[in-house]
Amino acid sequence: MNVLAGRALTGLMLFCLSCVALADPLPSWRSGAVKSAITEFVQATTTPGHANFLPASERIAVFDNDGTLWGEQPYYVQLAYALERAKVADPASLSAPLARALKADDVAAVMGMGADGLMELLAVSHADRSVDEFQQDVSRWLADARHPQSGLRYTDMVYQPMLELLRYLRDRGYQTYIVSGGGVDFIRAFAEQRYSIPPNRVIGSLGQMEAVEAEGRMVLMKRPGIAWLDDGQNKALAIERVIGQRPVLAVGNSDGDYPMLVWTTEGEGPRLGILVHHTDKAREYAYDRESHIGQLDQALDEAEPRGWVRVDMARDWARIYPDTP
Amino acid sequence: MNVLAGRALTGLMLFCLSCVALADPLPSWRSGAVKSAITEFVQATTTPGHANFLPASERIAVFDNDGTLWGEQPYYVQLAYALERAKVADPASLSAPLARALKADDVAAVMGMGADGLMELLAVSHADRSVDEFQQDVSRWLADARHPQSGLRYTDMVYQPMLELLRYLRDRGYQTYIVSGGGVDFIRAFAEQRYSIPPNRVIGSLGQMEAVEAEGRMVLMKRPGIAWLDDGQNKALAIERVIGQRPVLAVGNSDGDYPMLVWTTEGEGPRLGILVHHTDKAREYAYDRESHIGQLDQALDEAEPRGWVRVDMARDWARIYPDTP
Repeated sequence: MNVLAGRALTGLMLFCLSCVALADPLPSWRSGAVKSAITEFVQATTTPGHANFLPASERIAVFDNDGTLWGEQPYYVQLAYALERAKVADPASLSAPLARALKADDVAAVMGMGADGLMELLAVSHADRSVDEFQQDVSRWLADARHPQSGLRYTDMVYQPMLELLRYLRDRGYQTYIVSGGGVDFIRAFAEQRYSIPPNRVIGSLGQMEAVEAEGRMVLMKRPGIAWLDDGQNKALAIERVIGQRPVLAVGNSDGDYPMLVWTTEGEGPRLGILVHHTDKAREYAYDRESHIGQLDQALDEAEPRGWVRVDMARDWARIYPDTP
Repeated sequence: MNVLAGRALTGLMLFCLSCVALADPLPSWRSGAVKSAITEFVQATTTPGHANFLPASERIAVFDNDGTLWGEQPYYVQLAYALERAKVADPASLSAPLARALKADDVAAVMGMGADGLMELLAVSHADRSVDEFQQDVSRWLADARHPQSGLRYTDMVYQPMLELLRYLRDRGYQTYIVSGGGVDFIRAFAEQRYSIPPNRVIGSLGQMEAVEAEGRMVLMKRPGIAWLDDGQNKALAIERVIGQRPVLAVGNSDGDYPMLVWTTEGEGPRLGILVHHTDKAREYAYDRESHIGQLDQALDEAEPRGWVRVDMARDWARIYPDTP
């Protein structure tokens, strides 16, 4: 071997070694059974000739949002938005209990008002604006608003391991959908920028909407009331209505995701269900069966018999949040 | 130039000439203002550097189905399916007027029964089966059923010029969606095979649906009643709910498509509205303002002031249907 060939070979070997080092698509996931289960599933379903290979058209993955792709404690981000917008609404337009709770900054009182109170809060903060205006307002709000405990921007509290999993799946030909109990217009205001998930891959709860004419042009207005609450069984139904195909991979963190996980993993062929278990009080939150937000009880019992992968955040995630720029 | 080089050059020139000859993406569209308007729009929006260039993420095209992608006369294909399935239902389960009309093969009487009669017909023919069973049954039916006048299979009565337009758009990076008044489960039973449009690109009317447990597994059952009638203004609302972006190109043929065309073409930047006008009594049907099916009145008046392209089937389409295998 001459010197040049030797150098070329050495260079090639170094290149390949760095490939292997760089090749881990999930660097924020610690090595172990969970990470292996995920990478083995993705490898198998995307390797031609493998017994579990799936054509690209069947590679559909669905992700819950709150508590799965980003945080949901001490209360949903969308609720934080609603509270802040309702606070600056004309108090005369509010019911006395809501006005009182908002004035006292008493989130617990708002959450204790039940369905009627929540509907009123959503109407005051979400309705009677066009979808465009609403989404621009959400974007403005997200640019500044801070989490009440961490002081971070909400969009900096997405889970880095999930950003990696989304990208890994898409790089291997998967379509990644959000299927959330949150409002679809709210999620679309940041999903493309934060998750690289475009509007047509976001499924969520739907407010009432109306097409009206304003200054001779059609405008789509958000109206009070909920047309579709995308939680529980409705998540499975919404997947059928919007996607029209059963997913092969589902990721959730609460009992509201249970039917979606069941629907996904009861299908024929290779299937993967992933349950995010919030076990990390030091770096995030620890909650499950008793939590008022993101209660995880039935799905936790069913994870093992159904062969779902349980992500223990404290054990399996090397980091929680992305670097803040 | 030596002989070989000369031959290579000649070969290259012949190759390029044949490229040009083969390059017409719309061979079933006759040359003229309509075809030029379409190809100029697609060229402009997909040519980098052009003033009207659109990034791929904005290239969203929506198509009505009945009367736009395939025929709708003398009555909707889905109605033909419903009638045939209702005919073999237990007569004791039917109301007297519906049972009488079905026995007499009197389609006009069925259509004259109004909303309640139509709901009953849909319930008898569509509901209380799983979505999977329903779609398999539709596929079986479409494989044999024949149009009452042409004797052709319905799936052989899709419009060849529209198959070319769909393919042309997708080849240039457009997403092609169906936005139909027809039932989404019905359309998905043939859209992928016939139009190369996958389930998640089909928006349509929604029947009631329920997730139930059968033999220990989740099953999605179709139930009586309509949850979403995807016609008129609801087409614009459904586009926003499912796609979450305003399309740049819309194709329809009736007043039920008018709001979808308005919503699409009132957006900023390059927009194209296309209205299919059934003018071809010899090869298909001729109908517009007075038709009970696919009435085209307001949208026809608005086409010119709004700058929409009006496709005159008799004049603009060199052929109507694809070759039947």
